[in-house]
Amino acid sequence: MDINKERLLDSIFMLGKIGIDASGERTRLAASDAEKEGRDFVVKQMREAGLDVVVDRIGNIFGIWQTEENRKEAPLMIGSHIDTVINAGQYDGCYGVLTGIEIVRTLKEQKAALKRPLVVGAFTNEEGVRYQPDMMGSLVYAGDLSLDEALDSVGTDGTILRDELTRIGYGGTVDPGFIKPYAFIELHIEQGPIMDAKGISIGAVENLQGISWQRISIEGAANHAGTTPTDMRIDAGLAASKVNVFMRERCLASSGKTVCTVGTMALEPNAVNVIPSKAVFTVDVRNPNEEKLKEEEMALAAYLKKLEETDHVKIHTERLVRFEPVEFDNGICKITEKMAEKRGLSHCRMTSGAGQDAQMMARICPTAMIFVPSVKGISHNPKEYTRDEDLVGGANVFLDIVAELLLA
Amino acid sequence: MDINKERLLDSIFMLGKIGIDASGERTRLAASDAEKEGRDFVVKQMREAGLDVVVDRIGNIFGIWQTEENRKEAPLMIGSHIDTVINAGQYDGCYGVLTGIEIVRTLKEQKAALKRPLVVGAFTNEEGVRYQPDMMGSLVYAGDLSLDEALDSVGTDGTILRDELTRIGYGGTVDPGFIKPYAFIELHIEQGPIMDAKGISIGAVENLQGISWQRISIEGAANHAGTTPTDMRIDAGLAASKVNVFMRERCLASSGKTVCTVGTMALEPNAVNVIPSKAVFTVDVRNPNEEKLKEEEMALAAYLKKLEETDHVKIHTERLVRFEPVEFDNGICKITEKMAEKRGLSHCRMTSGAGQDAQMMARICPTAMIFVPSVKGISHNPKEYTRDEDLVGGANVFLDIVAELLLA
Repeated sequence: MDINKERLLDSIFMLGKIGIDASGERTRLAASDAEKEGRDFVVKQMREAGLDVVVDRIGNIFGIWQTEENRKEAPLMIGSHIDTVINAGQYDGCYGVLTGIEIVRTLKEQKAALKRPLVVGAFTNEEGVRYQPDMMGSLVYAGDLSLDEALDSVGTDGTILRDELTRIGYGGTVDPGFIKPYAFIELHIEQGPIMDAKGISIGAVENLQGISWQRISIEGAANHAGTTPTDMRIDAGLAASKVNVFMRERCLASSGKTVCTVGTMALEPNAVNVIPSKAVFTVDVRNPNEEKLKEEEMALAAYLKKLEETDHVKIHTERLVRFEPVEFDNGICKITEKMAEKRGLSHCRMTSGAGQDAQMMARICPTAMIFVPSVKGISHNPKEYTRDEDLVGGANVFLDIVAELLLA
Repeated sequence: MDINKERLLDSIFMLGKIGIDASGERTRLAASDAEKEGRDFVVKQMREAGLDVVVDRIGNIFGIWQTEENRKEAPLMIGSHIDTVINAGQYDGCYGVLTGIEIVRTLKEQKAALKRPLVVGAFTNEEGVRYQPDMMGSLVYAGDLSLDEALDSVGTDGTILRDELTRIGYGGTVDPGFIKPYAFIELHIEQGPIMDAKGISIGAVENLQGISWQRISIEGAANHAGTTPTDMRIDAGLAASKVNVFMRERCLASSGKTVCTVGTMALEPNAVNVIPSKAVFTVDVRNPNEEKLKEEEMALAAYLKKLEETDHVKIHTERLVRFEPVEFDNGICKITEKMAEKRGLSHCRMTSGAGQDAQMMARICPTAMIFVPSVKGISHNPKEYTRDEDLVGGANVFLDIVAELLLA
């Protein structure tokens, strides 16, 4: 049993065309006109596949296939999201949703009888570009963010999510969480370079990194770059540079487990011949193990304290984001490996470096993810690309997993 | 023989009041209305002291005291500048010009007969805030920048210096360089913290640091902060941080001779969760010895080359400013030490960390500088402060030096 390759690739291509603006950039921000068009496309595909479409009050779309025989069983839920970042690729999220629909079509063509209902979900606002926080639809669905708080979110354009969902016709009536899944599985592009570099086709995603974001402000003293001797300088920019170098050393010592990024940096007064009086920068630290992530945070805190003494600076830290790592379901990972094996596809255990709807769903049911490779690891970029054979291979492995779980 | 303390301090205070705006900030940018008022004040003081005032075509003001007896001798020139940065203190430059006038008044009161003419100069646009380059008046005077090029300078406000000098009535008629001095001596505040920290009253400035400014652009690859393993990152921001740390190590190894400042830094795309694809920053390196300064530049270049290999980045450097170090006249330095000694004032040899008009004048005649301490090294700032006793001490030592050189 195989999915229909052309049908799947066509649907990815068709959804990918929606939201392309005059300059050729693809942008479907959550609850925008462009995303409404994407939603309409997905709903139409779901209906044509014979699914009952239900939209919940945060705008999550569910295509439900249940029968008289299995309606009392907890459903298997599969899916992802279809909103995008600004100037996005066509695979991120969409691949998981559209493969879910293709799996339904394939199983229906085979006249399969399912032990449990099968639900294909598309979650609202995974990207978090227009409304904060990201992964909002799945977070509300899992019950960890109140519906009203989410609906009251003010967008970067000043709009209220509640109004926008109503306006585009996707303010549903059922409460998020109305289906308690038996399990949730999300198929996704890796969005990183590991599988492409190693030549691996299928990733059995066993966990998801914890994320720690801090904004660090270092105060020094602005003085003349020519007249101030080295030993009398209080150089906030130098201290910031030391933090960056220190954290890279931690990463290198972590056997590849910790990653850290100083992605933003601003100096004051930012003049060629003035010693920086202030440096404000962010530190993004990730590790799939909560204890290890805490260790990195503590090592950073200790280093900052040491810097205050050695470099005479004052340091203030502010926590921006903190997510604990997520352990995915080992049973589903094992089935993924088994099915990749059966298809003759190379596979490995993976850690998700990015945040995902699956990390929210893991709070309410056994959850796992399947990755396919991203060429050169590029994502959130129009150059995002996954080869057709990898898309099809991932879809067939996913089909086999669903069949293993749902066929008698 | 002493200068008149109250008269000197009063003149500093009076000039300091000129150019204070509604918000209380003191700003006299070159050839502005506020600076015209300052020039008028200086010219009036010069005339009242009995000097003949001549303005050259770049707007430098010279107060000339010559007699029938000494008119064939090369004059001793003393002076500095009276333009300021934005929101400036009242001492930078002005102290040297006004003390020059006070020395003339004192010598005239003593009915001194001078072996050579004495000229007090106030050079145009030392600060370089409104028109580039800085130290323009003395640079043109020394013949190393053409008059027309300087006059054609376009200001930050779109004005042309030529027009502005004419407008304020200071586009003179004589050619810069019309007086070839026997020697040039500039009295100035240190603008750095060394003398204040050491409790020294008089600095015999023996040299001026060479200055090397480069803008460095490092290209990396923008990738996802979560999904990109450490060993696959090309992090432009990290490479920039490494340069900063490396150069500080060079400074620490130079026995205090080299100073280096990374004063500006910009990352792209400058997002918390994206590895920086680009870092653009400046490196300001200074050393009073040309060979040593070249060594630092070569060490930096070699380090950048190494970084291209180890960190896989691409690096482009652009030279912004390069001035060779200047050796001042040892004879004048020795007289400075002797006169400080005679006055019972502590003294030390100094290096000028900042650029000065004296560095340009050193190209055409024996030149030296005298420093007095800046409290906490603060300058280019309304908090710039030198104690009255230090101002008076420096003025008296300067008077003694002039007397040593000019009295029979």
